[in-house]
Amino acid sequence: MPSEGRVEHPSVDARIIRTRHDVLRTALQVAIEQGWEAVTHPTIAAQAGYSRATLYNHWPTRADLLRDAFLRLGDIPHPVPTGEVRADLIAELISFRDAMRDRQLDRALAVLIDLSVSDPVMQEVRDRVVADGEHAVRALLKPIAGRQRVDVASLMLCGVLVQTALLHGREPKNREIAEAVDTVLAGLRGNSAAHR
Amino acid sequence: MPSEGRVEHPSVDARIIRTRHDVLRTALQVAIEQGWEAVTHPTIAAQAGYSRATLYNHWPTRADLLRDAFLRLGDIPHPVPTGEVRADLIAELISFRDAMRDRQLDRALAVLIDLSVSDPVMQEVRDRVVADGEHAVRALLKPIAGRQRVDVASLMLCGVLVQTALLHGREPKNREIAEAVDTVLAGLRGNSAAHR
Repeated sequence: MPSEGRVEHPSVDARIIRTRHDVLRTALQVAIEQGWEAVTHPTIAAQAGYSRATLYNHWPTRADLLRDAFLRLGDIPHPVPTGEVRADLIAELISFRDAMRDRQLDRALAVLIDLSVSDPVMQEVRDRVVADGEHAVRALLKPIAGRQRVDVASLMLCGVLVQTALLHGREPKNREIAEAVDTVLAGLRGNSAAHR
Repeated sequence: MPSEGRVEHPSVDARIIRTRHDVLRTALQVAIEQGWEAVTHPTIAAQAGYSRATLYNHWPTRADLLRDAFLRLGDIPHPVPTGEVRADLIAELISFRDAMRDRQLDRALAVLIDLSVSDPVMQEVRDRVVADGEHAVRALLKPIAGRQRVDVASLMLCGVLVQTALLHGREPKNREIAEAVDTVLAGLRGNSAAHR
């Protein structure tokens, strides 16, 4: 525990990291499966196998606990770009879709969206999670379009994933992802030729 | 009340319609403001100014009440199409965005998404609301693209609204909507020329 005065010792650091990891993973899982109401220090402590004191020590309030749990959501794997924009965008979006499925990111986002409606702290968490999630797509679009075009293209590509997962309750197919990327790329070319 | 045996009389019909309207509007408002947990027959009856018996008569369960309340969400105003696809798509999406703001559709969708994660009845409600919401956009795209292209184009256009409203917590600007429409239209032209 951080208050024991031995935090400079590597094995203690490692233990703290593992404790935080175990507890936050459990908290997120409970929030996804049972809703945010079920995330309390006693429940999560029991489920994760730690003492309540440890949890209160790391996270004084329920909001602290849930905030840190959700902040881990943005930390999804990104394929290494090859330099070919079309292939890289498709790979990134497929990886994003798979992370949504494997980590139940759709359910987590549903809880986060619902909490963000009325809670400014959770709005900040949502904004960070979304910025982390969109970052790789934006980085791939940046070399081929100006700032405003990147904003809209990124909203369209990430919007396809979110609209399909959260509002249609299904995964977007590889074909649909490829078609969305082709549409955006053709649109960026077409728009710059025709309208700018 | 429908069981009084005078339902054929127009003023009774009108009264039933008004009762249902008042109660469902109240139920939706309470769900948006306080969450689905707050939607109970006693609370909604008191807030809407009707007896509990009337509410139980129309909606035997909480799920019935919430389902009917959410089904009204899909009933948003649509501008009359002029025949010019670009202008019609932009007008439709702007009208959709304004309805999201004026009717707090974003908050209602947040609740609906959260409920749909674990409840098959609410999944059906979500599917109907989403189908109603996307219907006008799909109808405008239909004359210019095949079925699969319409699916993806509609996901991209509606996805921009949802991504902006629910995940960025702001309204899409007119400029962004127009740019998304131009991208999709240029993409549909570019794709059909280059890839098909």
